[in-house]
Amino acid sequence: MTATRELVRNCLRTDYQSLPEDVVAHAKLSLLNWLGVAIGAAEHASVEMLLNVARQNQSAPTSTIVGRAERVDPLFASLINGMASHVFDFDDTHLRTIHHPSGPVAPPCLALGERDRHSGVDVLRAFALGVEAELRIANAVCPSHYDLGWHVTATTGVFGSALSAGILLGLDEDELVQALGIAGTQSAGLREMFGTMSKPFHPGKAAHSGLLAALMAQQGFTSSTRVLEAPRGFANVMAPQRDLSEITAGWGVSWELLKNSFKPYACGIVLHPAIDACIALGRRFAPEDVSSLTVRVSPYVLELTGKHEPSTGLEGKFSIYHAAAIAFFEGDAGEAQFSDAAVTDKAMIDFREKITPVVDDNMGDDQAHATLTLMDGSIAEENVDHATGSLEKPMTTDDIVRKFHAVSSPILEHEQRTQLSERMLALESEDDIAELVALCVPDPTMPTSNP
Amino acid sequence: MTATRELVRNCLRTDYQSLPEDVVAHAKLSLLNWLGVAIGAAEHASVEMLLNVARQNQSAPTSTIVGRAERVDPLFASLINGMASHVFDFDDTHLRTIHHPSGPVAPPCLALGERDRHSGVDVLRAFALGVEAELRIANAVCPSHYDLGWHVTATTGVFGSALSAGILLGLDEDELVQALGIAGTQSAGLREMFGTMSKPFHPGKAAHSGLLAALMAQQGFTSSTRVLEAPRGFANVMAPQRDLSEITAGWGVSWELLKNSFKPYACGIVLHPAIDACIALGRRFAPEDVSSLTVRVSPYVLELTGKHEPSTGLEGKFSIYHAAAIAFFEGDAGEAQFSDAAVTDKAMIDFREKITPVVDDNMGDDQAHATLTLMDGSIAEENVDHATGSLEKPMTTDDIVRKFHAVSSPILEHEQRTQLSERMLALESEDDIAELVALCVPDPTMPTSNP
Repeated sequence: MTATRELVRNCLRTDYQSLPEDVVAHAKLSLLNWLGVAIGAAEHASVEMLLNVARQNQSAPTSTIVGRAERVDPLFASLINGMASHVFDFDDTHLRTIHHPSGPVAPPCLALGERDRHSGVDVLRAFALGVEAELRIANAVCPSHYDLGWHVTATTGVFGSALSAGILLGLDEDELVQALGIAGTQSAGLREMFGTMSKPFHPGKAAHSGLLAALMAQQGFTSSTRVLEAPRGFANVMAPQRDLSEITAGWGVSWELLKNSFKPYACGIVLHPAIDACIALGRRFAPEDVSSLTVRVSPYVLELTGKHEPSTGLEGKFSIYHAAAIAFFEGDAGEAQFSDAAVTDKAMIDFREKITPVVDDNMGDDQAHATLTLMDGSIAEENVDHATGSLEKPMTTDDIVRKFHAVSSPILEHEQRTQLSERMLALESEDDIAELVALCVPDPTMPTSNP
Repeated sequence: MTATRELVRNCLRTDYQSLPEDVVAHAKLSLLNWLGVAIGAAEHASVEMLLNVARQNQSAPTSTIVGRAERVDPLFASLINGMASHVFDFDDTHLRTIHHPSGPVAPPCLALGERDRHSGVDVLRAFALGVEAELRIANAVCPSHYDLGWHVTATTGVFGSALSAGILLGLDEDELVQALGIAGTQSAGLREMFGTMSKPFHPGKAAHSGLLAALMAQQGFTSSTRVLEAPRGFANVMAPQRDLSEITAGWGVSWELLKNSFKPYACGIVLHPAIDACIALGRRFAPEDVSSLTVRVSPYVLELTGKHEPSTGLEGKFSIYHAAAIAFFEGDAGEAQFSDAAVTDKAMIDFREKITPVVDDNMGDDQAHATLTLMDGSIAEENVDHATGSLEKPMTTDDIVRKFHAVSSPILEHEQRTQLSERMLALESEDDIAELVALCVPDPTMPTSNP
């Protein structure tokens, strides 16, 4: 049995009756002692500060959960929106650090932007700076930080969230330094959680903790002023190797934000070149004309996505067979293509039988080569040197708008999606973000249409 | 300039106009891409779960901030009560790990206990198990974890909070395992924060995050089932050395909770033996009869508390001169004795001149020897081998009740304190904790009296 489960079992089988008398007595003394010091500090300045943050948020449903009718306080809105955006693992990636930068930073920008009716310009600036900061901090501690087991999106995202929120709150230099300190001491998130709901929880929690830090700093709460570099600060404690110069060198000259890439397909990036190749072949030929399809891929592909007979949508994301088949058939590989229904579709199961992945040690991670043998014996090929979404072949604005429609179509109807994407792309023209956020709420009178 | 401050300055001087065009364009694409995947997941099960937690807490001021009239939701109540109890750094200590166990665990017990009207027996059991769990986990990772820079009270307190809360919520084994997982991935708290408000924030945040974990597990939220022991789990990522057997070995036979000790004096433990000796001398002699007072102490004492002319209460806590003087005069060394007024009192300043600390390399940390020379030339001595509050000489129940009165007297009037302490010491007789917690609210019609 694992230590975790054994601990839980021990607790569950320890009922009140089995607590020794001295343990009960000592527990009561502990509680009494605790209660006294807690009551004694009830009017301390730091308590007033935290209570002010609670008062601001309690019963204050000022901020929208995007795609839903509900509004909650800015902290819970940040928690939920940050998580929701990483549920599909289909958001964005800073490839050097494997960081998903928007998740921790966009939520506080939206939540405070809506509450305080900020302009698009203000939100864009706060977002860009928060992303730049978290990615530079990630550069400073990766790869050793990530290799150790930290989910860098969360651990450095909390700084980005605090900075974005603090900037929107109008904090001054000293307050922002304090906000970073309060944020850094909440930095958390273990890679052990990958594969569970707690992975998408990470950017949500980072957004929440960072916003909390900014709200506390606004109240005058204090912290270390050297959280990043102190001997017992973030970088030294959480990264075996680090280079703090990455955080500020070349600021304003080179932008890490520009290296943020977008995922075109709702599965591991390792499958993307093969999907590109199969989409291209699917545009040229009909499925019934296919005799066999061979896909040459890098060694990682079979190691990570070799599942031959997937039975759920999630398993489909780990199957080169399904990914290649659905890409050929549907010309896309979004969430809809990795639904349970898509994976168990008879035509798809049959077509998967025609597919043979072949490992080629000379293939780079960003490459694939697909060879189609037609029923008449003729051959067609597609070669991919850089997958869509890579730095060399980024998604175009049109690609991203198409993706936006595809992923949000189950929630919002077409006209609303069109308005929303057009206005998001002209965000600097918005005087009041709250009006834009209102467009993220589904219209209950409209059934959602197809993409 | 530090990296932290330079980062903040860079952000503040980067206004919207100085963002390059391509950065603005890429930021907008990032936001649009982010918004789509967030909206797309708006009806995902995990989003419903977090929203349910928000709904339960939003606008639900069910839980008291002890010592205040305000009630807030259980999450904010845990955050604030957990912080308040560590503000004076006068709570409790598990000496082997330097862990303050009640701070992260008592708050969710009180907050849920009050909300759900639990019995004293239920609260005692949940509290005892939460404390036992966090201390055993601390044993498993300390001292390397603490030495690396982690504030173990916070980093393992989050597990104790989650367990206590989960037990009060009635979670089953699998749900508790998930709660521990969700808790562990929020584990945080840097020792760099010592000396700022963010140190007491740590137990509050651990209480908050642990309770959040239990509330999420109650909704079915998933996590790793091996958070403590997995290769990328808590112990491996956050402690260079660890012994996981500490967590469960001898469960129910030996109790770490029994090794929780209470601080009699509101200053660093290193001063406690000297204070004991001076209190004893003060009971025997009047200040005006004292010619000089020499205190032999361990080497650490002068290193840590050698401030000769303290000018604030906080500085007084780092002054063997003030601590010895006030202990002799007032027979105590609580928060009142370390106020600004006490430190700047003329009689105290004069008496400090009569005090000479002498380092004795043969003195243990728990020892002190005070020698008083009276005006008539005669000598009186007091020797302390184990300070009050040590494992060898624990505070008695009467000591703890006296301390409770002393620390809470500025907030609650005498009769209320008496009732509260008597009922806390018979906690197992309470049918409904809410009635007890009501006694923690100051009576606005009653001025607080002296101790």
